[in-house]
Amino acid sequence: MVAVKGRLFGLGVGPGDPDLITVKALRYLQSAAVVAYPVAKGKKGNAFSIVEGYLQDWQIRLPLVYPVTTETLPPPFCYETTLRTFYDQMAEEIAVHLEAGRDVAAICEGDPFFYGSFMYLHDRLADRFETEVVPGVCSMLAGAAVLGAPLVYRNQTLTVLSGVLPEQELSRRLADTGAAVIMKLGRNFAKARKVIEDLGLMGRALYVERATMSAQRTLPLTEVVADSVPYFAMILVPGPRWEA
Amino acid sequence: MVAVKGRLFGLGVGPGDPDLITVKALRYLQSAAVVAYPVAKGKKGNAFSIVEGYLQDWQIRLPLVYPVTTETLPPPFCYETTLRTFYDQMAEEIAVHLEAGRDVAAICEGDPFFYGSFMYLHDRLADRFETEVVPGVCSMLAGAAVLGAPLVYRNQTLTVLSGVLPEQELSRRLADTGAAVIMKLGRNFAKARKVIEDLGLMGRALYVERATMSAQRTLPLTEVVADSVPYFAMILVPGPRWEA
Repeated sequence: MVAVKGRLFGLGVGPGDPDLITVKALRYLQSAAVVAYPVAKGKKGNAFSIVEGYLQDWQIRLPLVYPVTTETLPPPFCYETTLRTFYDQMAEEIAVHLEAGRDVAAICEGDPFFYGSFMYLHDRLADRFETEVVPGVCSMLAGAAVLGAPLVYRNQTLTVLSGVLPEQELSRRLADTGAAVIMKLGRNFAKARKVIEDLGLMGRALYVERATMSAQRTLPLTEVVADSVPYFAMILVPGPRWEA
Repeated sequence: MVAVKGRLFGLGVGPGDPDLITVKALRYLQSAAVVAYPVAKGKKGNAFSIVEGYLQDWQIRLPLVYPVTTETLPPPFCYETTLRTFYDQMAEEIAVHLEAGRDVAAICEGDPFFYGSFMYLHDRLADRFETEVVPGVCSMLAGAAVLGAPLVYRNQTLTVLSGVLPEQELSRRLADTGAAVIMKLGRNFAKARKVIEDLGLMGRALYVERATMSAQRTLPLTEVVADSVPYFAMILVPGPRWEA
């Protein structure tokens, strides 16, 4: 008898509000034998918090505990190497369950393929096991929704940027697009706001942190205290209203 | 007694698969007195097709019938003016229900604020009536999911482009981004493919039409027949795999 392997599901669970999970992801989530989720050491994990109320007692919880929480490590440690080893190990932990015939739902905040940690598991496992990805509502569109800000009209170009980019590159790209979103703000906030001021975009730019989560907060960009900006904050520069 | 006005909901119903609606949008959809949806004359409407199975007999259907299906009109007609008049009229039809105290769910394929027709209703009604927008899974992330293609890694820039853009602008923007999506292909397909060939991106580019709909189709970019490309087709150029 040939053993039947389990299936790997990459589930986007949406931006924060548990009701923003899709019907499909919820069904897969609740029927998987194993639920795997990324989490920082000592934390609960954002993705896990979103789905916690949906899980059932019989399901195996598999936390994937990040070895680091910052990209800057003291020598001789290398962020890339550390992370590569971590994902190798996590992929193997998941593979053990899949080989044993158990379906694994790897959950991901927002969408799995939009800056999602699931991509690194997918790159390691999709060739070896039957894999299905269920797209989710990404944080950027959740941000636009809670701000009541139509993001991108008609034939406008949308540019999605990481706050980590150098000031000069942020400036160049923001100056040359119809609409923009700057993600991953955190300690990059002051730089991003300066670029927006320098470009004369303050009148269009909007700020939101933890969109649709219980700790969601929106406030004028001028009033944001740079030191207090979380990683899950973003600046939206919606495209100019198209007067249809 | 002061009459209580109805509330306007802008609901993203996802890219095509009815199961890709969120739990929240589904709840609002099924409790609204009126369901408004965009549709071309003589057609059923993509958004309506997605939610049809969820609707109940007591709900009012309000089709918003587009007066035109192409942006090129014979003189003396002007696309912008025609569309502006159309949205003015549709907003007023919706306002009549809201004034009468009926909640209206305006549904939108994908996400309401990501190239969504709901934006034009929002611009006309959000100041006058209580409005809530529920974000949805956008077509671009559905495309990445069905193609099994992680779209954008770590700190890469993502550029979302309309196929309508001139060849030179498409080329310039595609040459200067980490990842890209070209939407609204249709008759713009041949131009877009040529740009991708010229830039040497054929090895990375992927094609999908009607992602997650029943008529979904994926095929190599080289095999696509330009004349047969629908509007709801896109080319994805995923960012280079980040070797974490």
